[in-house]
Amino acid sequence: MSTPWHFLSLRDVDTTTWQDLLAQSEILSGPRGREPLLAGRRCGMVFFNPSLRTRTAFEVACGDLGAFAVNLQVGGGLWSLEHRDGVVMDGPHAEHVKEGFAVLARMVDALGLRSFASLADAKEDARDLVLRSAAAASSVPVLSLESAMDHPHQGLADALTVRRKVGERAKVVVTWAPHIKPLPLAVPHAATLAFAQEGHDVVIAHPHGFDLDAGVVADATAIAEAAGGSLSVTHERDAAFEGARVIYAKSWGARGYYGDAQRAAADVMAHPEWIVDGPAMDRTDGGIFMHCLPVRRGVVVADEVLDGPSSVVIDQAAARLDVQKATLCRAMGVTA
Amino acid sequence: MSTPWHFLSLRDVDTTTWQDLLAQSEILSGPRGREPLLAGRRCGMVFFNPSLRTRTAFEVACGDLGAFAVNLQVGGGLWSLEHRDGVVMDGPHAEHVKEGFAVLARMVDALGLRSFASLADAKEDARDLVLRSAAAASSVPVLSLESAMDHPHQGLADALTVRRKVGERAKVVVTWAPHIKPLPLAVPHAATLAFAQEGHDVVIAHPHGFDLDAGVVADATAIAEAAGGSLSVTHERDAAFEGARVIYAKSWGARGYYGDAQRAAADVMAHPEWIVDGPAMDRTDGGIFMHCLPVRRGVVVADEVLDGPSSVVIDQAAARLDVQKATLCRAMGVTA
Amino acid sequence: MSTPWHFLSLRDVDTTTWQDLLAQSEILSGPRGREPLLAGRRCGMVFFNPSLRTRTAFEVACGDLGAFAVNLQVGGGLWSLEHRDGVVMDGPHAEHVKEGFAVLARMVDALGLRSFASLADAKEDARDLVLRSAAAASSVPVLSLESAMDHPHQGLADALTVRRKVGERAKVVVTWAPHIKPLPLAVPHAATLAFAQEGHDVVIAHPHGFDLDAGVVADATAIAEAAGGSLSVTHERDAAFEGARVIYAKSWGARGYYGDAQRAAADVMAHPEWIVDGPAMDRTDGGIFMHCLPVRRGVVVADEVLDGPSSVVIDQAAARLDVQKATLCRAMGVTA
Repeated sequence: MSTPWHFLSLRDVDTTTWQDLLAQSEILSGPRGREPLLAGRRCGMVFFNPSLRTRTAFEVACGDLGAFAVNLQVGGGLWSLEHRDGVVMDGPHAEHVKEGFAVLARMVDALGLRSFASLADAKEDARDLVLRSAAAASSVPVLSLESAMDHPHQGLADALTVRRKVGERAKVVVTWAPHIKPLPLAVPHAATLAFAQEGHDVVIAHPHGFDLDAGVVADATAIAEAAGGSLSVTHERDAAFEGARVIYAKSWGARGYYGDAQRAAADVMAHPEWIVDGPAMDRTDGGIFMHCLPVRRGVVVADEVLDGPSSVVIDQAAARLDVQKATLCRAMGVTA
Repeated sequence: MSTPWHFLSLRDVDTTTWQDLLAQSEILSGPRGREPLLAGRRCGMVFFNPSLRTRTAFEVACGDLGAFAVNLQVGGGLWSLEHRDGVVMDGPHAEHVKEGFAVLARMVDALGLRSFASLADAKEDARDLVLRSAAAASSVPVLSLESAMDHPHQGLADALTVRRKVGERAKVVVTWAPHIKPLPLAVPHAATLAFAQEGHDVVIAHPHGFDLDAGVVADATAIAEAAGGSLSVTHERDAAFEGARVIYAKSWGARGYYGDAQRAAADVMAHPEWIVDGPAMDRTDGGIFMHCLPVRRGVVVADEVLDGPSSVVIDQAAARLDVQKATLCRAMGVTA
Repeated sequence: MSTPWHFLSLRDVDTTTWQDLLAQSEILSGPRGREPLLAGRRCGMVFFNPSLRTRTAFEVACGDLGAFAVNLQVGGGLWSLEHRDGVVMDGPHAEHVKEGFAVLARMVDALGLRSFASLADAKEDARDLVLRSAAAASSVPVLSLESAMDHPHQGLADALTVRRKVGERAKVVVTWAPHIKPLPLAVPHAATLAFAQEGHDVVIAHPHGFDLDAGVVADATAIAEAAGGSLSVTHERDAAFEGARVIYAKSWGARGYYGDAQRAAADVMAHPEWIVDGPAMDRTDGGIFMHCLPVRRGVVVADEVLDGPSSVVIDQAAARLDVQKATLCRAMGVTA
């Protein structure tokens, strides 16, 4: 069989595909996105982790296009899944991803999969094995709905939102924010890669010790430069905000403390001044505030910003529906 | 944007709307209720608590009318939600209802929400904040699928059932029943308000200490009197049953023991003689037995009653489908 | 009301029905299975236990045929259900199967139910009370999606797979396999009954102490002989594999240790040599390897077998979709 089109990471997406996905997203955000372009198609979702936007966007995208969706929640009605190769399965996992996804692929036409990072071992997370082994086992397209390393639909929606709100090359800051526990790197990776694809001047701002994955940053730098933009990393939050048109906030944990939950939590709480508040936004050039949601009010962002006119988080989330339609159509060989 | 039509409590429903909803329910219980009146519409459900009838009625109502439904279970695949205003979100809740419902409202055309009472603080429960803040955040209609204070679809179905089974002004007893733990007030509130709307002679019977919310009782009294009926409260169970055409049983906890689970449980177990059994039903005027389900056999009601000819609980539950279709149609501006 | 057609156990299925279900499965595996034969029908699923294949097959079967499906997970959004008769419900179960299924049957046209064996009391399991009481309470067809004693859809899919892969009367071995904990008897019962219905020469192989239910074995023997086949039981694994065309592996627990989880677990781990590996398969007559999945790699079966050319487990699982369509159509009186 030929290899299906998987959508696993923005690192794998070439320029033509990227531009096409965003163009299709715009088309599908209109009346065309309510036509039965995918009539009779069946889509499966497998969630190892919670979801509100992603699950709803996927299911509504299917419904709007005439497809139907089956949702499976690991640990909530679905068997626990093993993903390692060659292992003797005498532990808690009753089924291997190999069989699980091979079987699902015989019953549906495309599969979405969410599997968060373990935050226990940065090298293991970087291999993104649940997603990769699921895609290897599946004879139909697998769409990542966030994996250990990337959240490509979020990145697409972020790029679409900046096109709609800013509309030109701009200074875009992906800024670390405080939290109460360490979070994965998937979203800052996706945002960085997406803004790089768009040729923006991307600034990644975070305290010392919170480096993103070096391979992702290298790839994003190359992508940004090829697209006519730039990428830089700074630890000076205030300087980073100067002149920015977009503030993209996200919390993530320091990989140095992976496996040590207590130290990791203390670490993300140790920089409360990185909260995005009114004075911080005042340094920008009329910048918009973005966040992928869910967001902790009063920790990541002040209410005055989140509820204020610069916040575009609801529009940003709503764009998830548009891009989901685009990737589902592409996965099933349909052009809107 | 204009305020959408929310269906949050029977206290808010005027006579015209009430009559219209019941008339539409009857129409939609027939062949009209299997036509694609809501084709292409998308409905979301958010459940903070378990459900069988409500979830199924909502989903089947959508399907019968050509709409599709997305079901989100808090804590079972959905992020835990915060609802308080101005709070620093450094606790267990990852997302605020404000963002959650604002986002969902961008992806669907109507939202159902179930959020039970906490039974920890009667004043807090009376504010019904989860439901109210969700409705405030949503740009599309929010339908209560039971909140801390009311269960308006249950009330509608109860009224419809009495219309079908009794068909005239009658003595209707909402009677407290024993249990093994305290339960919320939403259902007795809804039944009281519904039977008041219908102009019945409503008698609320319960042991001392189990008063319903005073505001609800005052509203229901005014509604009953305006509709040509009456409302009274008694602690004499046997006298209450005399001449009744409808016995509506429900357990609920005493607000005086909210926050003290052990005392509250002892309290609802302290009146086993309030079980609805054959001798109790014999006091009525050929009364029907109603309960919203789920019901604990041998605790709330004796098998002889529940399995006997006076019981209408299955028809009562089936009516939930009819009224659900009516509220969904109204929410989306469709008349059957 | 007339009794609906329930599909609860292969022990109840006569030859005409059996042949018809398999013939319809083949028809529905083609283009006819994607036509709206069940347009407007509503199907409910109630799961007391996890599922991947069953849930997906049911939901996709509904979707492919134009029906829609509502999925209810006990303990994951659905009330916990009591099934015993005459009990005072003062324990953890909030609702009785009687009311639950009577109500669901008023809202849908067919119901699927999964309820595993307790493994605590073999006599209780043999009564299959959850399934039987649900069917008794339901006015619409109930389809077993695996109960304590049988897994009839799995058996149908197993028979269909052997028809497709072998196509003639053959020696078929249902072989016990090691595990890390005791599992129910439903699948080996179903496979034995299915292969008996097909008139194969069925050999059940297991270590001493792992006898299947005597009533099921007696019924299967009679069915096999009526169909021109045979049934035997052996404790000699290697001899059983000689000349076999089908190796059907499954773990199950010894009924003698029901209720003693530690002894039961030790017992299923005490025969690691029963793993199905390359040398074991080499004894067969080019036999195919079957397993219902999920399967524990390295415990039940060696990777070399599961990933090798003799394994048909993915095709076997895919056949679940075909047979699900056949039982749903039959339940709703539709012939493809």
